[in-house]
Amino acid sequence: MRLVSFGAPGEEQAGAVVDGSIVPLSELGFDGSVRTLLASGRLAEITARAATCGPGGIAFGSVRLGPPVTDPGKIICVGLNYHGHAAEQKSPLPERPLLFAKASTALTGCADLIVIPDPACGPDYEVELVAVIGKRGRNIDESQAMRHVAGFMVGNDVSARRWQKQDGQWFRAKSSDTFMPCGPWLTTRDEVGDHRQLRLTTTIGGVVLQDALASDLIFDLPTILAYASRSMTLEPGDLISTGTPAGVGCYRNPVRFLQPGEVVECAIASGSCDLGRLANPVAEPPPRPTAVSGTGN
Amino acid sequence: MRLVSFGAPGEEQAGAVVDGSIVPLSELGFDGSVRTLLASGRLAEITARAATCGPGGIAFGSVRLGPPVTDPGKIICVGLNYHGHAAEQKSPLPERPLLFAKASTALTGCADLIVIPDPACGPDYEVELVAVIGKRGRNIDESQAMRHVAGFMVGNDVSARRWQKQDGQWFRAKSSDTFMPCGPWLTTRDEVGDHRQLRLTTTIGGVVLQDALASDLIFDLPTILAYASRSMTLEPGDLISTGTPAGVGCYRNPVRFLQPGEVVECAIASGSCDLGRLANPVAEPPPRPTAVSGTGN
Repeated sequence: MRLVSFGAPGEEQAGAVVDGSIVPLSELGFDGSVRTLLASGRLAEITARAATCGPGGIAFGSVRLGPPVTDPGKIICVGLNYHGHAAEQKSPLPERPLLFAKASTALTGCADLIVIPDPACGPDYEVELVAVIGKRGRNIDESQAMRHVAGFMVGNDVSARRWQKQDGQWFRAKSSDTFMPCGPWLTTRDEVGDHRQLRLTTTIGGVVLQDALASDLIFDLPTILAYASRSMTLEPGDLISTGTPAGVGCYRNPVRFLQPGEVVECAIASGSCDLGRLANPVAEPPPRPTAVSGTGN
Repeated sequence: MRLVSFGAPGEEQAGAVVDGSIVPLSELGFDGSVRTLLASGRLAEITARAATCGPGGIAFGSVRLGPPVTDPGKIICVGLNYHGHAAEQKSPLPERPLLFAKASTALTGCADLIVIPDPACGPDYEVELVAVIGKRGRNIDESQAMRHVAGFMVGNDVSARRWQKQDGQWFRAKSSDTFMPCGPWLTTRDEVGDHRQLRLTTTIGGVVLQDALASDLIFDLPTILAYASRSMTLEPGDLISTGTPAGVGCYRNPVRFLQPGEVVECAIASGSCDLGRLANPVAEPPPRPTAVSGTGN
């Protein structure tokens, strides 16, 4: 089953994809977001109901798709987690998963703009397999770890390379608004098979820049989940972004940063499963910062 | 006005402190958490109503206090932000705020246990002034920045020093469950005055280990808010932890890490305002990790 969050930014509704259409979960007896569905323990029930209903009234291409999980409690990322990516930066293999965070306000939809906050920040792409936590856990055993995964998505861990280097800590460089395109849908785990067989690609203007199998992962998902949960409780809706393979722009010769006007395409699939494709246009920053205030106190 | 989240972990209710008692916000016409109150734009209305009602039925000492904001969208921290703290580690002053993140699952209440996940991780205390965002904003102007602050709390940015060094990235070392005691209440901004006049202390067993004025901050709160919001949208309920002054355990001679059985007390006050005191006992890890699973799919 494929789950989506559709509608205007900040007003997304949860839906299931049925026969090329979207059925709002509210028509299936669930009022809430994808995150609250996962937390409710009703994922299996609601997806079973979706599988037996007819197509919905919303054509798949007629609405904006937001990030499938719009409001995760945390986004845990793993750095330096593909053999090829470690090799391209001549780095020794890490002894343990290198965890860092992205802000959830960086999430954006599969066709939304990637907005560069500063033309000098050195923006770069990173296709990543993103796991969505479905079941709360702490000190998770590796043998049981996949039971904590609700499903998978394509992610792009957009990174401002010059800020990463300036700060040492990667949080700011990885967390600018729109720096985590995600989607297009959440594919539930039962449809994915072995995540190590998935193939990840990044393409810009027809040129393939990243192309690798998840079998090149240094630490696979059970290892990451067991490791992270030794200190942090994983909660339904949390995102685990598992790292990027070789081919990022900052280690190319010559270095290749994202340019306004380009469209970055990230896709993940295997022979039997298609997690879908992100296609995000890169946009210039607004001409000058202007204060934007919303409601509140 | 002081706002609290009271009740069992994961089941906290929002309340206001009136005459040494707690009035649940639900009795004041608001059903929701402190975060949703901030997002609703009704903070001024609800606190005004609290100020004119009689004492509530819940005695202040009779219930557990959780972190005043239980579920922030993000926790942005500032490293190396006091002159004294930079001096004790012989570090040059940073040119810009050094931002990093803590996981919101690290939050815990003002009298809850700090549980050390691994006896070898090098746990340390860091008293910090925590600002709570009340109004959404991006590209916030410094002159308007304080209008985005709903109020202030005491925080303890507990840090596993050996993990911090091992990883290089600080996220894991700063994000273990219980590594951010916070509270006891959220004091609304109107009662705090100039945050640079607040005095921060950490005391263990009667020994004062940190004692500094926030006037020793390198980057004050308007500067931090303007800077962070140049890349990230700040949302109601987000926490900004502004950095710790001199006196942390890892730079003492001899080095002094937290020990099971100790109680760490962190307090912040000025002549006219008392943000309160955290008193968190330090606990050993459970004898061996055991899998803990909750509801979910």
